[in-house]
Amino acid sequence: MILTIDLSSQIPIYQQIRDRVVEAVATGELAQGSPLPSTRQLAADLGINFHTVNKAYDLLRQEGLLVLNRKTGAVVQRDARTGPPPAGFTEEWSARLRTLLAEAVAQGLDGPGVLAACRTALTTFAGDVDATEQGEPA
Amino acid sequence: MILTIDLSSQIPIYQQIRDRVVEAVATGELAQGSPLPSTRQLAADLGINFHTVNKAYDLLRQEGLLVLNRKTGAVVQRDARTGPPPAGFTEEWSARLRTLLAEAVAQGLDGPGVLAACRTALTTFAGDVDATEQGEPA
Repeated sequence: MILTIDLSSQIPIYQQIRDRVVEAVATGELAQGSPLPSTRQLAADLGINFHTVNKAYDLLRQEGLLVLNRKTGAVVQRDARTGPPPAGFTEEWSARLRTLLAEAVAQGLDGPGVLAACRTALTTFAGDVDATEQGEPA
Repeated sequence: MILTIDLSSQIPIYQQIRDRVVEAVATGELAQGSPLPSTRQLAADLGINFHTVNKAYDLLRQEGLLVLNRKTGAVVQRDARTGPPPAGFTEEWSARLRTLLAEAVAQGLDGPGVLAACRTALTTFAGDVDATEQGEPA
């Protein structure tokens, strides 16, 4: 996994690391059991403090996506598409989705454009997202 | 506008206020020129510190959704659907959307289910989001 972070971004570096790992799990690039670099190794590779990497890994552990232990280091805990999601996840995630989509509409993107953006982003993780939807009557 | 916050949520209160205002702009409940309560009034109504309300209003000002001044107080600056969005918004927003959708897939929601959630959330802000999309050849 090539992990690219933007040091000039307003998004905190630990958040960027967390986000890139989440995306790699979603695409399947990181499958169940994949090892991640040690915090010191990744910190050295990225030229950042290892506490920053620790913070990202700890977030991912709290989200159930990583297991951390002294022997194996950080290992991906979850395969994408091995549902169902943890209890409460869908409801909490849907609330964040609602706010994010509201932001686009409030800033002037139109509804069909926003939905098209969702479809485009999703296709990179989940393949043909219309497979089931199109089979249902409108 | 009825602004409901959840004091037991892990989401900071200023963020909840910001999110609810964004959603109200998106639905059109808060239109261009709508006044918001003063920070002290809203703080008293919600039983929170007025600095918390200030922080939320300042975020909304930075996002271009509110104008704050001493004479008029906080006034909505933007009407939903009066595009185009500010420069750089779409790109930055799309990156956040990508991460949020990745999170759902990584946690085990399937692609069609995620797209359906997008459609459902969006319909509450933007009406019939398929109007344009369905007119285009697949």
